Amino acid sequence: MLFRQLYDAETSTYTYLLADEATRQAVLIDPVVEQVERDLRLVAELNVALVYTLETHVHADHVTGASVIRERLGTRSVVAAEGGAGCGDVHVRDGDRVELGRYALVVRTTPGHTNGCLSFVLDPEGSGGHEAMVFTGDALLIRGCGRTDFQQGDPQQLWRSVHDKLFTLPPHTLVYPGHDYKGVTVSTIGEEREHNPRLGGSKTEAEFVAIMNSLHLAQPKKIDVAVPANLNCGVVRKEPGRGVPQG
Amino acid sequence: MLFRQLYDAETSTYTYLLADEATRQAVLIDPVVEQVERDLRLVAELNVALVYTLETHVHADHVTGASVIRERLGTRSVVAAEGGAGCGDVHVRDGDRVELGRYALVVRTTPGHTNGCLSFVLDPEGSGGHEAMVFTGDALLIRGCGRTDFQQGDPQQLWRSVHDKLFTLPPHTLVYPGHDYKGVTVSTIGEEREHNPRLGGSKTEAEFVAIMNSLHLAQPKKIDVAVPANLNCGVVRKEPGRGVPQG
Repeated sequence: MLFRQLYDAETSTYTYLLADEATRQAVLIDPVVEQVERDLRLVAELNVALVYTLETHVHADHVTGASVIRERLGTRSVVAAEGGAGCGDVHVRDGDRVELGRYALVVRTTPGHTNGCLSFVLDPEGSGGHEAMVFTGDALLIRGCGRTDFQQGDPQQLWRSVHDKLFTLPPHTLVYPGHDYKGVTVSTIGEEREHNPRLGGSKTEAEFVAIMNSLHLAQPKKIDVAVPANLNCGVVRKEPGRGVPQG
Repeated sequence: MLFRQLYDAETSTYTYLLADEATRQAVLIDPVVEQVERDLRLVAELNVALVYTLETHVHADHVTGASVIRERLGTRSVVAAEGGAGCGDVHVRDGDRVELGRYALVVRTTPGHTNGCLSFVLDPEGSGGHEAMVFTGDALLIRGCGRTDFQQGDPQQLWRSVHDKLFTLPPHTLVYPGHDYKGVTVSTIGEEREHNPRLGGSKTEAEFVAIMNSLHLAQPKKIDVAVPANLNCGVVRKEPGRGVPQG
């Protein structure tokens, strides 16, 4: 498998390119609109065909590149059936599979940061011997997690998502998150179960909820632009009150 | 093998942690002094023992964490026999091996950015089935290369280093550079041979030398602190004229 982790320094966002080296089919997970030129140049140089963009959720801190990429290459946008992004071409639910040549990404719904958060597990059965991987968006970050104070965030729900849907994966599974703010690129399920200071070790659900409810974070700078744009796959409304129709 | 790519956002520098999961022996390639706390926390959480720090070269843009790590953990510093960093505990030359449990990193001298630049190849014979990797420092960057206008830099020498010592590796070898300024984390030898706009494709040595001699870049901000400090494994001279003895 061809695999590339890409980074947007302004928003500390990770984008992931995965491709089947044999069939040359590729997907991009969480593309950032400002990085579309970089990403599509890489797609061209690697001589792969971008069949899907996948969104882990409706982001509040950056605008997705899905719409621009769809316009440029005809790439279909995969979004959660829950969460309000009716703009997608494919709406997925828990257990659905996104096929990628000989590989597949299996959807696990992991709400709590937002009500429509998804994680994508590289199918351990059909992974062609590749290392086990999960793309966790903002549900599980390295030694952290996404905030739970907007977009229908819910700390109890996030606790259950992480413990029931992610920490149950094999411990050696590589964790590729949606962001990192300290320059760490990857972790494992085993590491997070043991060392995540909010969700792992001996922490209880009640302690986690107390932590999340006491964060009092400032709003993301771009939230008023990013959320409406991402509900529309990244189309930014140019004139207030004259939004592009959704769905 | 345990493998972690780490990033310092201020200087766009990559640090690499490699460890043998069986013997728990680990090395850090190009640690950054400001990130030592992060890196040693990870080393502790992963329950590995840091036996060596390795320097790809005497950096001009950031200070190495080698000296602080040596003080804290007794970790031995591996540096080039050429290049003036007499402070190291181990001085390596072309073909030398740095043993890491069941693995080994083989030294390839790749001068041209500085006169003491090293690349480290994960031994393809003894890599325990791990993917082929090369850590190229600033000799070969993703779609670029290090500048050649100070620290005995020499574009003709850099061209020969990249073409003779790096582009001769198998095309699927993963290239892990010392920096990236666009958020790309990894490339391959095959990609760089084909798409590196300075050194690959149909570029000739004469064209490369002309490109490098016409860059006219500003000096790195930290060069006056970083180079003397890194010649001494990262010990910053506090009082001008009273430097810490080298060697």
